[in-house]
Amino acid sequence: MTADLDSRMMARALQLARRGRYSAMPNPHVGCVLVRDGQVIGEGFTQPAGGNHAEIEALQAAGDATGATAYVTLEPCSHTGKTGPCADALIAAGVRRVVAAMEDPNPRVAGAGLDKLRAAGLQVDVGLLETDARQVIPGFIARMSRGRGRVRAKLAMSLDGRTAMASGESQWITGPAARADVQRLRAMSCAVITGIGTVLADDCSLTVRAEELGLPPAEAALGSRKQPLRVVLDSGLQTPLDARVLDGAAPTLLCHDAQLPPSADIAAKGVEQLALPRGETGLDLASLLDHLAMRQSNEILVECGPRLAGAFLQAGLLDAMVVYVAPVLMGSAARPLLDLPLDSMSARVPLVIDDMRRVGDDWRITAIPQY
Amino acid sequence: MTADLDSRMMARALQLARRGRYSAMPNPHVGCVLVRDGQVIGEGFTQPAGGNHAEIEALQAAGDATGATAYVTLEPCSHTGKTGPCADALIAAGVRRVVAAMEDPNPRVAGAGLDKLRAAGLQVDVGLLETDARQVIPGFIARMSRGRGRVRAKLAMSLDGRTAMASGESQWITGPAARADVQRLRAMSCAVITGIGTVLADDCSLTVRAEELGLPPAEAALGSRKQPLRVVLDSGLQTPLDARVLDGAAPTLLCHDAQLPPSADIAAKGVEQLALPRGETGLDLASLLDHLAMRQSNEILVECGPRLAGAFLQAGLLDAMVVYVAPVLMGSAARPLLDLPLDSMSARVPLVIDDMRRVGDDWRITAIPQY
Repeated sequence: MTADLDSRMMARALQLARRGRYSAMPNPHVGCVLVRDGQVIGEGFTQPAGGNHAEIEALQAAGDATGATAYVTLEPCSHTGKTGPCADALIAAGVRRVVAAMEDPNPRVAGAGLDKLRAAGLQVDVGLLETDARQVIPGFIARMSRGRGRVRAKLAMSLDGRTAMASGESQWITGPAARADVQRLRAMSCAVITGIGTVLADDCSLTVRAEELGLPPAEAALGSRKQPLRVVLDSGLQTPLDARVLDGAAPTLLCHDAQLPPSADIAAKGVEQLALPRGETGLDLASLLDHLAMRQSNEILVECGPRLAGAFLQAGLLDAMVVYVAPVLMGSAARPLLDLPLDSMSARVPLVIDDMRRVGDDWRITAIPQY
Repeated sequence: MTADLDSRMMARALQLARRGRYSAMPNPHVGCVLVRDGQVIGEGFTQPAGGNHAEIEALQAAGDATGATAYVTLEPCSHTGKTGPCADALIAAGVRRVVAAMEDPNPRVAGAGLDKLRAAGLQVDVGLLETDARQVIPGFIARMSRGRGRVRAKLAMSLDGRTAMASGESQWITGPAARADVQRLRAMSCAVITGIGTVLADDCSLTVRAEELGLPPAEAALGSRKQPLRVVLDSGLQTPLDARVLDGAAPTLLCHDAQLPPSADIAAKGVEQLALPRGETGLDLASLLDHLAMRQSNEILVECGPRLAGAFLQAGLLDAMVVYVAPVLMGSAARPLLDLPLDSMSARVPLVIDDMRRVGDDWRITAIPQY
């Protein structure tokens, strides 16, 4: 019965956690449920950076939490960041038991929050629904555990694996539901990376537009509250000064070859520039990801053409491909999904298909490269 | 209550009908349930050609069917084929009511069976679960209503839409579950078409192998009882005399350019040859399908390379593409899914995705071209 209550409450906490997925970054989005005598007395999820963590939200909602059990999707923090440590707040509120789905992968916490609770005499249980909890914050876990956020490439193709006609003609392969899905991917990302080719061909804006998220108004407002960092890989500094990515609608980072000086014109527009070393094909992508980790980017979305997507894959830096498949054949003369010249079956890249589902008239396939 | 009973009994009849999908051809596979006082008193499905139709099977199982209701997935036949007319048998058995899911699209029946039942005083209801019933026998319906069976192309590709490396290296892209699924597709087909390129590259046998069907023994025995006709498009009569398609393990039809005389060597092996006119790209495919309709082919499977698959598509003769997607990337130098040179987005072929499901580690996409 308690086990059953525990699972139900943790499932609820996970549901709450997901509400923060568009707005908690760079913090992990966490959910918290406070329960006393089998009744929920308070709930909360991580507020936008600088705001309350989930535990504080739930404690404030409960008012008096004496003797309660707290269900949290991640170990309560023990350090003082922009807010005070949640472990201390739970102790001070008289919470008797804390059930955490997982330890915090943040080396500054890593069990210290739980130790603090135990030292204060609280009962602490860890690991309930841990697999589910890890799937809620993969980008944060990746950044904390390997020093690099999660990198996903968004691709759109015809059923025969083509992204554009040979002429370059391509826009609107997929339908409105898929485009709204991409908007949501952007909204949960800290950074969106594209290449100069895509900027020149499509003059993309890479912004999140509240009205295109396909979300209820309150969620759409959270989702569009903060624009992800636009990252343009432009080794030769060819981005036109009137390009949408330079329009100031969202922060932009223009990456160029370190052998070139930064552009004075772009600097004059107040756009940040980053000099990167050259990698095997184009700018060094690992250096870029290191830089983005330093900027606390948990979720990184690559929205680009076949060349840059192929380069990320060949560098072994792609954690997942999110492929939208339009119900159409574009033919064998059209452009490939990825520029990935392989010459034998032994060189092929195995994938695990993580998910395949219908999105409007299109289908979305999530595939994990097995390097 | 009666409506509910009717639906349940017709659903059962449809389930029975599907049991004949590997063996009833060229007859449609039909199911029949006899019910009296709410109890099933007999069931049956179409036996292999020359054997009993579903109604006769059910009547024999029931023994005495006086006063019963017969649920049949297709209008009972009124003509004498290899067996006597089922309508007469139902009347003679004293059946009181007949519920048929659909009229027979066979112009030799087309309501005549139902008229005969009505004339004998039976209550007749038509159209219950008709949509489902039509999905059970699409090949038969296609052949009867348009004079050409249903043509499906089986294709296997990597996630990036490639079928083989540039060198031709390709075998075993997909896993064992997908290969068993293909065996079942073959088993429900009257004819399997391939091109000389595939014969030369793979020396394919195109046979149904009971042990590879992945079916329970009784079904596997039905499924491999009769081999589909192997059809090889070999305009220049290049099939080597020791090719597996000439091994006599299944009937074979070798199609060649009508401007060439048939091969004496192939004739000496007892293999049938068909002279076809030339079409826009290779042999005329519409003529071939006319010939196969004459041979009562309901379901036709095209198993071939990108060239022939593209030719069927461009000729507007493909009813569905069954695409097995392997979780792998083969790269941009690899061979395309279809040879289909299109030069603008307006020339693209729209599809309706009918079904997408996991088959082992692979995925199967069924797509309907919208010509």
